[in-house]
Amino acid sequence: MSITAASAAAGAPADQATVRRLNLALLLRSLAEGGSRSRARLAADTGLTKATVSTLVSDLQARQLVVEGDAERTGLGRPGRVLHLNTESVRCLGLEINVDYICGVAMDLSGQVRARARWALPMQSLGPARGLGVAADLARQLLLDCGAGAQQVRSVQLSMPGMVDVDSGILVNAPNLRWRDVDVVHSLLGRLDWRWASFTVDNDANLGAMAHYAAAPAGLRHLLYLSGEIGVGGGTVIDGSIVRGANGWAGEVGHMPLGPGDRVCGCGRSGCWETVVGLGAVLDAIADPGDALHDETIDMAERLDLVCARAAAGDERTLAGLRRQGHWLGMGLSILLNVQDPGLIVLGGYFPVIQEWIAEPMMAEIRRRAIALPDIEPRVEFSSLGIEASCLGAAHAGVEALIADPASAPIAAG
Amino acid sequence: MSITAASAAAGAPADQATVRRLNLALLLRSLAEGGSRSRARLAADTGLTKATVSTLVSDLQARQLVVEGDAERTGLGRPGRVLHLNTESVRCLGLEINVDYICGVAMDLSGQVRARARWALPMQSLGPARGLGVAADLARQLLLDCGAGAQQVRSVQLSMPGMVDVDSGILVNAPNLRWRDVDVVHSLLGRLDWRWASFTVDNDANLGAMAHYAAAPAGLRHLLYLSGEIGVGGGTVIDGSIVRGANGWAGEVGHMPLGPGDRVCGCGRSGCWETVVGLGAVLDAIADPGDALHDETIDMAERLDLVCARAAAGDERTLAGLRRQGHWLGMGLSILLNVQDPGLIVLGGYFPVIQEWIAEPMMAEIRRRAIALPDIEPRVEFSSLGIEASCLGAAHAGVEALIADPASAPIAAG
Repeated sequence: MSITAASAAAGAPADQATVRRLNLALLLRSLAEGGSRSRARLAADTGLTKATVSTLVSDLQARQLVVEGDAERTGLGRPGRVLHLNTESVRCLGLEINVDYICGVAMDLSGQVRARARWALPMQSLGPARGLGVAADLARQLLLDCGAGAQQVRSVQLSMPGMVDVDSGILVNAPNLRWRDVDVVHSLLGRLDWRWASFTVDNDANLGAMAHYAAAPAGLRHLLYLSGEIGVGGGTVIDGSIVRGANGWAGEVGHMPLGPGDRVCGCGRSGCWETVVGLGAVLDAIADPGDALHDETIDMAERLDLVCARAAAGDERTLAGLRRQGHWLGMGLSILLNVQDPGLIVLGGYFPVIQEWIAEPMMAEIRRRAIALPDIEPRVEFSSLGIEASCLGAAHAGVEALIADPASAPIAAG
Repeated sequence: MSITAASAAAGAPADQATVRRLNLALLLRSLAEGGSRSRARLAADTGLTKATVSTLVSDLQARQLVVEGDAERTGLGRPGRVLHLNTESVRCLGLEINVDYICGVAMDLSGQVRARARWALPMQSLGPARGLGVAADLARQLLLDCGAGAQQVRSVQLSMPGMVDVDSGILVNAPNLRWRDVDVVHSLLGRLDWRWASFTVDNDANLGAMAHYAAAPAGLRHLLYLSGEIGVGGGTVIDGSIVRGANGWAGEVGHMPLGPGDRVCGCGRSGCWETVVGLGAVLDAIADPGDALHDETIDMAERLDLVCARAAAGDERTLAGLRRQGHWLGMGLSILLNVQDPGLIVLGGYFPVIQEWIAEPMMAEIRRRAIALPDIEPRVEFSSLGIEASCLGAAHAGVEALIADPASAPIAAG
């Protein structure tokens, strides 16, 4: 809901305010990505004049985005004071609602997590109305835990496992949660009434992609993230922006028709990719109906531990199932590599847990299939962010929006 | 190679020159998309002051991008003169080198084609060095045909059927042409020496996508174009920009592994999508080796006429082959719809020729497979631009670059 400098510059007349806005973003990004520096060095590094830098830094200080530290001697002349990102003022919250838990983080302007919380709750049976009440409670708890006040919160970004209408802030459909047509953003806004924060919602795979983009080495421009759960979703970030498609449906990779047609998908179709690479498909392949792996009273993390234990013990059926899953994973990833050519694919969700047994058959299939080879070796990695990926990405999306348009932050009173 | 206003605004300090650059683009785009108007109306429509509009219009006139027409009475006050795009000055050339022909168009600032040429030539056996000489000859011919001088040419954009390194202007590999590692841009630049033109190269499917984007109704933001020939390539345009991927390999959709594994692809792999939807695959499916359809001395257009004649006459083998092709086409398009969610897919190359027989099985498969249904009906259309699509897109890309950054055009002497 915040206007970025780029969108301000496109289609609207440009004036002095546009210039100021673009240069505020340039300075703040330079501090965020290049580290703390004096005004003189910032001027040298950005190409702005020292006078302009001084004026803009005062503005960034008034918005509590930048603070002054100790003096730094830069050679000739008076020593200049070093400017840092203000990590003690603004907070960006990321919240995630999923099937059996709700979690969140509070992040500072440098991307550091200042508080985190995770509550195991049956969100499906709780339902949307009470579920959003719990989400508001968790947001308040995060604020308490990091010792911040509501006036410090600049963004509350919610991650949902389903189809989201980002522009209107509505959850269209989350099949595994069985929530449909929920006014999530306005409901949270109504409960929290944090007037200096922008409230937004996005899909969990999109925000997982954002989290890994923020964690990736500088220079990476294009990343594809795959969330592996019962369903398999994709999120793409190019140059810091989430790619959503014309109607917000981009990334429905779990429903690529390329598996054998003998399994019916959760969507009602058959042959969808997630019927061979989703978590349910793997459990079905390696365990008969009465097996503990299918016991829904056992936490999924424990059941995955059991899968790993069997594989480590050399159980043939488990190993064959995982090999087959790795093969199909590589097959679908080859399609995504050929269609999108991302600079990096990150596999999240349950994929990292079984990495040891699926990585090799997966890469073998990619080597056979990816068209860019041998010129370019595709980069496929397993996520190390764990279950927090989406809510980290949600918080990062808020930080990124603030850095892209510092003028969206209010000037502090007094 | 030209700098757009957007890229000028990102990462570099903004100043008065940035403002001017953005506003020049705003005015020129307003004229290009909204039609001719007086200065007063332009001011009202863009939000710029009348004084600013007057100054900027003088600049656009000096760069020969805008001309003044008759007076327009706008109510009170003096009648203002109507401003038009200057369609008589600058020319943007699009050239396409393909396996058995080379073609080109010269376009004016309004997107109208002012000259066109197509020469049937065996470009493969001609080879890169002499082939590029012919391309330069064709460019000179286009200029003669539209009565323009070299100093009027602002862009020469070349379309190649293969993998291109856009930044360095190099053709990496065009397998069907058997050209590899060719310095196409500098070679053309060296031959033509048109100093006011920017020279660029791109992939034919990318430029086909650009042509259809330019022809699409306003409001369409995301388009996927599929070029159907022996190979099948994809091009994506989002918000007027070609999406190339991290290494320039995006859109290699013909090599998605989803066909049966019994046919070897031109790339050496088996099961690639183009082994069931490419032109060669269809001809193999409907005609035995001795059949006229396989006679390479007959022009491909004639052979396609023969396919249509047989289908129209009700030949069972032909009809079954085309139905099967339509089915596989729909299968792959469903993947692209689920992964990318484009607002429109356009099928070009030979697909429109056989449209009558493949559209129904194709759409049936899409209806079974596309995840956005029934909420959103995917838009899939057949191209009406014919064989010229890529060189039209090449010329459009030059026009678009000029409108996005009018300051890249030189100020005319005298």
